[in-house]
Amino acid sequence: MRNIKITIAYDGTRYNGWQRQDNTENTIQGKLETLLSKMTGEEVEIHGSGRTDAGVHSLGQVFHFHTECTMTTEEIQAYMNEYLPMDIAVLEVRNASERFHSRLNVKRKTYCYHIWNSPVANVFERKYSYQIPEMLDVDKMKKAAEYLIGTHDFKSFCANKRMKKSTVRMIESIQFEKDGAMLKIRYRGNGFLYNMVRILTGTLIEVGKGERTPEDMKRILASLDREQAGFTAPAHGLFMEGVEY
Amino acid sequence: MRNIKITIAYDGTRYNGWQRQDNTENTIQGKLETLLSKMTGEEVEIHGSGRTDAGVHSLGQVFHFHTECTMTTEEIQAYMNEYLPMDIAVLEVRNASERFHSRLNVKRKTYCYHIWNSPVANVFERKYSYQIPEMLDVDKMKKAAEYLIGTHDFKSFCANKRMKKSTVRMIESIQFEKDGAMLKIRYRGNGFLYNMVRILTGTLIEVGKGERTPEDMKRILASLDREQAGFTAPAHGLFMEGVEY
Repeated sequence: MRNIKITIAYDGTRYNGWQRQDNTENTIQGKLETLLSKMTGEEVEIHGSGRTDAGVHSLGQVFHFHTECTMTTEEIQAYMNEYLPMDIAVLEVRNASERFHSRLNVKRKTYCYHIWNSPVANVFERKYSYQIPEMLDVDKMKKAAEYLIGTHDFKSFCANKRMKKSTVRMIESIQFEKDGAMLKIRYRGNGFLYNMVRILTGTLIEVGKGERTPEDMKRILASLDREQAGFTAPAHGLFMEGVEY
Repeated sequence: MRNIKITIAYDGTRYNGWQRQDNTENTIQGKLETLLSKMTGEEVEIHGSGRTDAGVHSLGQVFHFHTECTMTTEEIQAYMNEYLPMDIAVLEVRNASERFHSRLNVKRKTYCYHIWNSPVANVFERKYSYQIPEMLDVDKMKKAAEYLIGTHDFKSFCANKRMKKSTVRMIESIQFEKDGAMLKIRYRGNGFLYNMVRILTGTLIEVGKGERTPEDMKRILASLDREQAGFTAPAHGLFMEGVEY
């Protein structure tokens, strides 16, 4: 059986997130499975590297699926890009080894949160960044972020209260990129919990506003209590940038 | 009477262009006049630096209007940004001299055309750039653009066939900026005719595809015939960047 690995980008604005749900239409997974089933004449089930929430964007989501389809990778990419909606694009199609699994084989994931830090809105970034009118103290945010680097139990930053599996993850780096009013916070790590990047970002924003000190981050992390962390930054500022295997 | 100069940005996607029309709703001018009339209690008529077509964007359109309103410039900006739709933003409000006129006093205008030059679509730029799948020869486009610099009769690049006024304009510079698959062509000049930037861009694209030679540009310019020039590049790739006085 052929195992195909596909990398896609999507504008998450009008979708109910990645994961197909029985009671909700208009998910990215649903759109892709419907199209691939039509393309192959098989009942295709795809496996993503992870879910993204409603409204979250992606520059490099990866999924795989098994098929008997004999089309070339170029033909598959051309077919998909012809029939997918304008807000989903196939960047790459590859034949993967039989054992490749898009979620289980993840080595590193990168997420990036976009903040438009200005009292004046940017009409072109309004769907792709979170506007904060008051000036953020980025140096304090950087200092707070340092406490998060390394392997920690990130339970305080997990929205799933009934999470039974391990909440230990490794964050390799958190980079801050400032270009005019645009502030990008890029997180690299071996995996992220449900809403983790958005809660980390919300907490860093509260530090940047002076509502918390950078040192608070240490205490929040140690508390293993979601209530101690900051708010969940909105979905539309978040980009899943890529997955490495 | 007070004369107020306002600079705005807008995402032109869902508007029928700048100019208020009796038979068409949803113009930028219409939205602004309705709001300013409500704000001042007067019947406000605004004067833009120039029109933009349906679907064209702006990073710095300028208009002025006369009023007896006594609000401060900060109050006017805050009021407008509170009540304008999310795709129009007020960047600056200033008290102008009595004689200031946003169209008659223009010294220089800058337009920029965005081309996404890749077979794979960019889902985030799809409303803000024109996708061309085949690779463009940018060096040839630059060579063709050189013939356009200076003061010329640009009648061949004017969509208005019944234009009675002068079609002579001065183009100061045409800059090419390439960043990955994004190609930006920036035009600076003392004024542009109806559809001129879009026809210039369409003609340069045909040179980039090898359908015309750079030297053809000289002949097209001299012909004073719209039929000799290339196609009109679509509106959604065009940004009116700013006006200088």
